[in-house]
Amino acid sequence: MSLISPRTLKGFRDYLPEAMIPRRKLIETAARVYQSYGFSPIDTPALEYLEILMGKGSEETDKQLYKFKDNGGRDVGMRFDLTVPLARFVSEHFNELGMPFKRFHIATVWRGENTQAGRYREFMQCDFDTIGTLNISADIESTLVIYDLMRAIGFERFTIHLNNRKILTGLLEKFCLAEKTVPVLRALDKIAKIGYEKVLEEMCQTAETTRQQAEEVLKLTTLSGNNTEILKQLSPLVVGSEKGESGLADLAAVLSAATAVGMPDENLKLNVSIARGLDYYTGTIWETFLGDLPTLGSVCSGGRYDNLTGMFLKQPVPGIGASLGLDRLLAGMEQLGMLPPIKTPAPVFVPYFDESRLETYLQIAASLRAAGIGVEVYPEPKKLGVQLKYADKKGFRFALIAGAAELENGMCQVKDLSAKTQRDVPLEELVEYLL
Amino acid sequence: MSLISPRTLKGFRDYLPEAMIPRRKLIETAARVYQSYGFSPIDTPALEYLEILMGKGSEETDKQLYKFKDNGGRDVGMRFDLTVPLARFVSEHFNELGMPFKRFHIATVWRGENTQAGRYREFMQCDFDTIGTLNISADIESTLVIYDLMRAIGFERFTIHLNNRKILTGLLEKFCLAEKTVPVLRALDKIAKIGYEKVLEEMCQTAETTRQQAEEVLKLTTLSGNNTEILKQLSPLVVGSEKGESGLADLAAVLSAATAVGMPDENLKLNVSIARGLDYYTGTIWETFLGDLPTLGSVCSGGRYDNLTGMFLKQPVPGIGASLGLDRLLAGMEQLGMLPPIKTPAPVFVPYFDESRLETYLQIAASLRAAGIGVEVYPEPKKLGVQLKYADKKGFRFALIAGAAELENGMCQVKDLSAKTQRDVPLEELVEYLL
Repeated sequence: MSLISPRTLKGFRDYLPEAMIPRRKLIETAARVYQSYGFSPIDTPALEYLEILMGKGSEETDKQLYKFKDNGGRDVGMRFDLTVPLARFVSEHFNELGMPFKRFHIATVWRGENTQAGRYREFMQCDFDTIGTLNISADIESTLVIYDLMRAIGFERFTIHLNNRKILTGLLEKFCLAEKTVPVLRALDKIAKIGYEKVLEEMCQTAETTRQQAEEVLKLTTLSGNNTEILKQLSPLVVGSEKGESGLADLAAVLSAATAVGMPDENLKLNVSIARGLDYYTGTIWETFLGDLPTLGSVCSGGRYDNLTGMFLKQPVPGIGASLGLDRLLAGMEQLGMLPPIKTPAPVFVPYFDESRLETYLQIAASLRAAGIGVEVYPEPKKLGVQLKYADKKGFRFALIAGAAELENGMCQVKDLSAKTQRDVPLEELVEYLL
Repeated sequence: MSLISPRTLKGFRDYLPEAMIPRRKLIETAARVYQSYGFSPIDTPALEYLEILMGKGSEETDKQLYKFKDNGGRDVGMRFDLTVPLARFVSEHFNELGMPFKRFHIATVWRGENTQAGRYREFMQCDFDTIGTLNISADIESTLVIYDLMRAIGFERFTIHLNNRKILTGLLEKFCLAEKTVPVLRALDKIAKIGYEKVLEEMCQTAETTRQQAEEVLKLTTLSGNNTEILKQLSPLVVGSEKGESGLADLAAVLSAATAVGMPDENLKLNVSIARGLDYYTGTIWETFLGDLPTLGSVCSGGRYDNLTGMFLKQPVPGIGASLGLDRLLAGMEQLGMLPPIKTPAPVFVPYFDESRLETYLQIAASLRAAGIGVEVYPEPKKLGVQLKYADKKGFRFALIAGAAELENGMCQVKDLSAKTQRDVPLEELVEYLL
């Protein structure tokens, strides 16, 4: 029989233990934080009717869809995000779920992206959302979730950039620019690159604003100081616009509650220049940057939206939520040296040293496992050197070496494989010593 | 815009919180047990080259494959199990991984099965395997893993049926029936249905054995007693067959070590009548049945195989492992009343009672979360009755009710929602009280 070449598809990848261990840990941390706020886990199928996936996607998304006819002749596609499935899920089970409904969803999605950009065609999303309430408490709570997530993952230096889409929308309405939102924003977006004067010029020309209108909008880019100071400067800008004032009140409420619950100022920064998902978000929005790797881009983003289920239901269903960028975060953590090179989930290694004592090694291992300590017993009575080399390569923390002489004295030798030290420990004290 | 009907594909299903919470818990338990033995997590792509998936599958499997041409014109398919991906993975990364290699893999697979049999087209597999060693210690350890898994999930009454394929193979070789393995086994398989005499007859006719040959093989079905007694009765049957004697020694070693590590006899039963995967397994095999639901079928099965990577590599790579039947187990646990109807992962509910005190509620919640207690704060200051109805429906354990009067005295009322009792507790003692 001729052999088949073992290989993965372009844009797809295997996760070996050294990649999968920190990945699983990150996923577990996110799930733990989400659950501590009462977000429930759900899952949806990898395949959906194509009609459902194509319904709201952009042309770009549609092109990237993995789609085909199944054996029953149905047009189906693999999910490309977790938002469309959430919308379908909430619509399908609306009465059963009851509102408010808080869920998290950590699952794989697929997009036939151009892999030249270093993108993968299979990746994981990690979303949490609160559906069915317009109350600001959900905006506050979601902000706390992002903060807790970042802390639980191990970061102290990070900034959650907070904005509210109603500020800009209100401002544009106030100056009769609502219909020119897109070109105004496009110009505004260039402020860092081309500077105040040129943006002003572009607004007047491309968006056909008056000079005064442009100057009013551009005041947004001149705000400075801490959150309280920026709130103060925003106040006169939005005065007279119901939407703008409501956005300002929302921002103030989120900032006040965050402080009350103990979030340090440096972790939450009012930033009126972030816009995110023009068509989709309608209120609070966040982007989160690492203090030590700001160029990595946002690692946790999201916001409030007015109508999740428009494709499926007549009544609008609002929601708010964000998504943790797992792959980006892992890349960042690796760059920052936060991921030790470990290929085993168990800290303790027991060499199969004395061929006649396998049952004893298994008993020792079982007693450690009963105390919650992970143990791997080497499966073959090879030379000790070979076994210890294996242990080193895998990154075990300790090796327990027990030959006839040690065991007869009720002892074993505990090698600390990173500190390169060793010590004889009585078997009955082993659990205590290792803990 | 016309609305799209929100629906899932036939054979696919959503997991709502009440289904997903126990499912996640089971998955986490399995992962914890696997890791405690040093099995490392891995993951592989959902999509593989069709050539790789079709290589070893049976005609039945091939028919069930979700296959299509991707946007780049490649023939691809969705994985239908985790064994073919493991073979590809081990072959592709053989040198990088090093042997022995112990991995677990918990992931979704897809098969376009006939849904009339109550089968799903998307389900999860939960496998662990030790690759690259022929040593009996791996057979022993895998048996211990199955036992620990069942205990950790919450079962005490279960039986792991243990056999070794070498017993039967050796016996058939000894009586010159090696080439008639298939018809002999097919006859043997009917023993419970049609009885000794009819099986004997079928062997003589269909498998063309002599009456004596058939009687020798059928001795296997007459063994009885406890494990030690069965081992004794097996010994004269296999004597003279190298393979049979080796199988017997393997069984004896597994049973001896299991007893030494403290596994009760009633949880591990020698059963020479189980055969599993004729073509694939070559040594130790297991099936696991629940004491209270034996008709559910095996919930954890597997065995030893000689050559995992035959499709991809010249040298044979042996392995041993088993698979936990997640869906079957969950169905069984539900039947046995082991799954409480809970729709929230957090035990504590805080009603948003006094509209002006949101920040206080958030502070209380944060202090409980800091102590590891999950808390959901209701997002709207609705009537208390509405909020408590929500809490009841979701299955929270406790509700913390705090109005102005309680809070001014530094107290809150803790309602035990299942016991229907309540008690005033000082805020500073809340964590301790709830723990």
